[in-house]
Amino acid sequence: MILTVTLNTALDLTYRVPSLRQHSSHRVSEVTERPGGKGVNVARVLAALGHEVTVTGFAGGATGREVRDRLASEAPGVVDALVPVAGATRRTIAVVDQRTGDTTQLNEPGPVVTPAEWSAFQDSYEDLLGSMSAVALCGSLPRGLPVGAYAGLVRTARAANVPVLLDTSGEALRRAVAARPDIIKPNADELAELTGSHEPLRATQDARRRGARAVIASLGSEGLLAHTSDGLWRAAPPSRVRGNPTGAGDSAVAGLLAGLVEQLPWPNRLSRAVALSAATVLCPVAGEFDRAAYEELLGRVSVTGEATAA
Amino acid sequence: MILTVTLNTALDLTYRVPSLRQHSSHRVSEVTERPGGKGVNVARVLAALGHEVTVTGFAGGATGREVRDRLASEAPGVVDALVPVAGATRRTIAVVDQRTGDTTQLNEPGPVVTPAEWSAFQDSYEDLLGSMSAVALCGSLPRGLPVGAYAGLVRTARAANVPVLLDTSGEALRRAVAARPDIIKPNADELAELTGSHEPLRATQDARRRGARAVIASLGSEGLLAHTSDGLWRAAPPSRVRGNPTGAGDSAVAGLLAGLVEQLPWPNRLSRAVALSAATVLCPVAGEFDRAAYEELLGRVSVTGEATAA
Repeated sequence: MILTVTLNTALDLTYRVPSLRQHSSHRVSEVTERPGGKGVNVARVLAALGHEVTVTGFAGGATGREVRDRLASEAPGVVDALVPVAGATRRTIAVVDQRTGDTTQLNEPGPVVTPAEWSAFQDSYEDLLGSMSAVALCGSLPRGLPVGAYAGLVRTARAANVPVLLDTSGEALRRAVAARPDIIKPNADELAELTGSHEPLRATQDARRRGARAVIASLGSEGLLAHTSDGLWRAAPPSRVRGNPTGAGDSAVAGLLAGLVEQLPWPNRLSRAVALSAATVLCPVAGEFDRAAYEELLGRVSVTGEATAA
Repeated sequence: MILTVTLNTALDLTYRVPSLRQHSSHRVSEVTERPGGKGVNVARVLAALGHEVTVTGFAGGATGREVRDRLASEAPGVVDALVPVAGATRRTIAVVDQRTGDTTQLNEPGPVVTPAEWSAFQDSYEDLLGSMSAVALCGSLPRGLPVGAYAGLVRTARAANVPVLLDTSGEALRRAVAARPDIIKPNADELAELTGSHEPLRATQDARRRGARAVIASLGSEGLLAHTSDGLWRAAPPSRVRGNPTGAGDSAVAGLLAGLVEQLPWPNRLSRAVALSAATVLCPVAGEFDRAAYEELLGRVSVTGEATAA
């Protein structure tokens, strides 16, 4: 069983409008709703790949109830271990202009988590870890949590001997890296913010020195750069893929976790992550992946680099 | 007891963002939520004025549940007689740019109502009319309803001897006017669309010829023009009011209904409607009215015109 943690879950809405114009009124021609937040997206991809997966984090209010209802009905393979919170789960709204294809994003702030709720979460998380083979900590921190929240969750996972992947940004990432997570998966901006370097090779090396055991940097259309104790690799799709990049990073995390629990060597884990990420970009539905494209791409991802001498 | 009908209820969200820019991502700095739709707004104002009021229409899905929960907790004087529907109640989102004060509006389409649901509503409506002293039919029709839906509801009210006020637009208004509602309250655009005339005096006269017994045209900052069987009046606030016009029309409807059930003469009904409408524009919270301003304005509304010789 894999555990994904989404402290700031979301009800993700997509609105299609014929043409978005500021200061005017729009009839939304199509509404789609799905439970979201990075760890929830990761869990859905893992479940689609046949893995047993549990989601935890916080859910509250009418929107939190809808997230849970939709998880139960639309992602039946995903176990719901979300912890109740008094505040309301945030909505995110992606407004897609059907004329240009461009997206304007509106993200609610989400609940303020109280110390008692955070404490209840930590107890539940520690209990859950007992039956997990890996854990992923994903996304931003809700208001009310200490900036060192992920650092604490990394330490708890390490104390329980559960490998931990961290996908966050900013100060929360900086603090948690020092707690020595097994894998971090920053994008180029997050990596530069963490290390001060815009040169990926130097930056991944620096991030390892700061505490991360493996750094998998996602470099957009160039694929992944992996700096691990086993070696250094670059993995890229066979050609540039065009489409909707929403959720591509979360699919990459799912690929890395799947490869981790299946104890695959790094090059195979990276192939999975890149193929899943590209198959997500190719799928017209945000956050879903095109399974046929995934299977076709899997054998065509180029992985270059070398293992460190043992 | 007054009945207000909102066939397309809504969960009204207001998002404040520091500065709205197309094709970029925004953190919403403030979210407010309230049950909405024109008839719901009218009911809230009537309840605040001390009237007993029942709301009906449709509510469904997670958003419909939230509308009902919030009605119960935030508008305790309003009786909920909403009819359940399988589809989900729409959300409307007003995105307020805090830099400019401008609003960009996104309106979900709302549920498709089935013939069985429409039939259940009509039965419930007819039952409710038995204990009502007035009914207001407000807002747009949800998908699935016949364009003559309001015409049918007007006829049912007239058959039950309950005075009926209609506040809608387009073809639904045109059809329902022919069923002889007691009062219609079009704005200048709706009136011009109904009659083909942009000259308010001519247009209100024409609307009466089409079947409306009284036509109360809302002419924005100029106030109201009332063409009734008792006479012709203009009512305007003492000075131009500036603020948020959201809900001002619904407050005018509430004032007209309150005056109707209290059997006030037309000039007094119009004073109430204009004062409530202006006090709504003056209140910073959309759809709420400033009670002190209402009471102060009530004696200062100018009503000019004359009664028809009896």
